Amino acid sequence: MRDASFALLPEPPYYAVIFSSRRTPGDAGYGAMGERMAALAQEQPGFLGVESARDADGFGITVSYWTDEASIRAWKNHAEHRIAQETGMQGWYQHYETRVAKVERAYSLK
Amino acid sequence: MRDASFALLPEPPYYAVIFSSRRTPGDAGYGAMGERMAALAQEQPGFLGVESARDADGFGITVSYWTDEASIRAWKNHAEHRIAQETGMQGWYQHYETRVAKVERAYSLK
Repeated sequence: MRDASFALLPEPPYYAVIFSSRRTPGDAGYGAMGERMAALAQEQPGFLGVESARDADGFGITVSYWTDEASIRAWKNHAEHRIAQETGMQGWYQHYETRVAKVERAYSLK
Repeated sequence: MRDASFALLPEPPYYAVIFSSRRTPGDAGYGAMGERMAALAQEQPGFLGVESARDADGFGITVSYWTDEASIRAWKNHAEHRIAQETGMQGWYQHYETRVAKVERAYSLK
């Protein structure tokens, strides 16, 4: 059976949003909002897939994959996502970094 | 104090290697080899930084950052790293995916 933690992506090129974050302690609505944002992201034009891992100390990396930069900008400006981003800045994250990158090649475990 | 889990990077452009993996159960020398590879990577020309997270189920994402593609190829072909890659394929990982991407823009929590 396929491991659903891995995104199933087309051949490059496509785009990646690398989001690294350190969570604050406690949930404070983060879990529910995260699930809602994940579901909403998947409905957006240009969304290809997402992979995510967070360690026991609260440091996490989420990489979402998109067909093009316009899709990424549209998602960043999505009204409901903007509210989540503003709430995130105020309480869920101690710190985060976002990097937008063009995937040029990809290879896998054979 | 700066959170050392975050890589301190220059302004884009630079390159990212996004390595997603599912570990097999048990250590089998993985921890020691991982530490050695992390130390060795930092000595390579063009290395800029690395961020890594692995969740309790063994799914992890490591993103290493490099000045250019030539540095990435040189590291991939480094003799000691090649041995680690081959061992990894044989035992440490159930599955992995590698994506090489050019970071075009970056922003942070202000």
